[in-house]
Amino acid sequence: MKIVSFLVADRKSWGLVVPRGIVDLGRRLGTTYPDVRAMLAGDGIARVAAFLHAQIDYHAEEVVFLPPIERPEKIFCVGMNYAEKRAEFAETNPAPTLFVRFPYSQTGHGCPVLKPAVTREFDYEGELAVVIGKAGFRIPTEEAYAHVAGYSCYMDGSVRDWQHTWFTAGKNWRETGAFGPWLVTADEIPDPHALKIGTWLNGRQVQDDNTGNMIHRIPELIAYISTFSPLEPGDVIITGSPGGVGKKRNPPLFMKDGDEIEVEIEGIGRLRNTIAQEAIAA
Amino acid sequence: MKIVSFLVADRKSWGLVVPRGIVDLGRRLGTTYPDVRAMLAGDGIARVAAFLHAQIDYHAEEVVFLPPIERPEKIFCVGMNYAEKRAEFAETNPAPTLFVRFPYSQTGHGCPVLKPAVTREFDYEGELAVVIGKAGFRIPTEEAYAHVAGYSCYMDGSVRDWQHTWFTAGKNWRETGAFGPWLVTADEIPDPHALKIGTWLNGRQVQDDNTGNMIHRIPELIAYISTFSPLEPGDVIITGSPGGVGKKRNPPLFMKDGDEIEVEIEGIGRLRNTIAQEAIAA
Repeated sequence: MKIVSFLVADRKSWGLVVPRGIVDLGRRLGTTYPDVRAMLAGDGIARVAAFLHAQIDYHAEEVVFLPPIERPEKIFCVGMNYAEKRAEFAETNPAPTLFVRFPYSQTGHGCPVLKPAVTREFDYEGELAVVIGKAGFRIPTEEAYAHVAGYSCYMDGSVRDWQHTWFTAGKNWRETGAFGPWLVTADEIPDPHALKIGTWLNGRQVQDDNTGNMIHRIPELIAYISTFSPLEPGDVIITGSPGGVGKKRNPPLFMKDGDEIEVEIEGIGRLRNTIAQEAIAA
Repeated sequence: MKIVSFLVADRKSWGLVVPRGIVDLGRRLGTTYPDVRAMLAGDGIARVAAFLHAQIDYHAEEVVFLPPIERPEKIFCVGMNYAEKRAEFAETNPAPTLFVRFPYSQTGHGCPVLKPAVTREFDYEGELAVVIGKAGFRIPTEEAYAHVAGYSCYMDGSVRDWQHTWFTAGKNWRETGAFGPWLVTADEIPDPHALKIGTWLNGRQVQDDNTGNMIHRIPELIAYISTFSPLEPGDVIITGSPGGVGKKRNPPLFMKDGDEIEVEIEGIGRLRNTIAQEAIAA
């Protein structure tokens, strides 16, 4: 199933994406599950599935996509998790590189990604996002997949000139992390480490890899993170970007106002956003 | 004023600390302001002040202290912000070092600080915490203090063997960050850069500095962070630790089960916690 969060006529809702369009489940189940995070926390997937053949409420073009989880309690981001990326950044530390994004830094499919006015180095990173469905703490590797609700695409827009080795300031600008278009439930992705992943800037492919090439795989990441952090339904783990980022190209290749950036992952979908220069004032 | 969050008979509340004890404002103003964060967001300081001479409800010993802001939307932590600490860690990057803590990693005054079972390097850091009172984005340095609600002490318990240059895993273990005892409102601290700050481990002073020795001062930190992040009432900025941490001593000095750790900042108070070895299971 494809589960989506969206705005329609200024109302926030969520629902199912089916071939014909969108089934509004906020309207049908909203008193029980006000949003996707609440639906996951309330173990509502089976109730959602009952609407797979319901009549659609909107065509996809009628809604504004929001991040599938609009306000995760936690967004853990993994850096340096593909061999080519590690080589580009000369990263040698064997532990998973982890940083944090705050929810305000996200935006949905089709929405503008804001290029901060101050940066000269606004870079793309196409990534596989993992959404937690079941709470857990100190989750063993072999049980990790039971805690995954599903997967999505992420464009981890990165302000390289503010990034440093601690990442925080480079990764937390408003509306720089595109997330979507939807959450594909885990039952549809039998092996999340056998998916083609690519990024396109203005139609030119700039990243081209396979999730099988991740250094720290999803079960290992869940086990590692949950060693110190309780994981909750709706928490998000962004699993890192392949090589080919703009900062390490010769000449460097950064995103600018009007560019189109796309991330596609096999079996999930294609996340498409346009870069917009942000206004200087808030 | 000293504003406090607490548990009494398993009920969460908040209120004022006065010399005689604690005035329960959750009971009196809770429908308008369910917690301290909501009080700050609702600009409720003047209503709080009206209760400074009210009859107390409890003696301090009758309550369990919670972090003054129990669930901040954001906790930004500044690393390497005192000259001696920077020298200890050979830090040369001039930009503010920033990492993030999640709320589950906090605990209140007098509560156990949990030493993770896996670490051999559980270290102390005594710090000044700044609590945001007024929302802002791209706040100029000269307006920064108008966005500060007040100050508190923080013991940024650090798992050095998981820390790395990206900090996340070293700083986000359950109940390792002690925060309190209370929030002292900004009107009582005319100059937050002229305060003695010290840390004591089992009664022995292990950090001894003055907040005047911070490299990046509070207005600069607020301006820097709010360049990329909107700041909200109840957000917390932890301003970094002086030198003298256990990791860089010879021999190293780490915290263990049963130790008492205290952080005192002039004009604010003394935060006291006991270290408890955590159980392996959650």
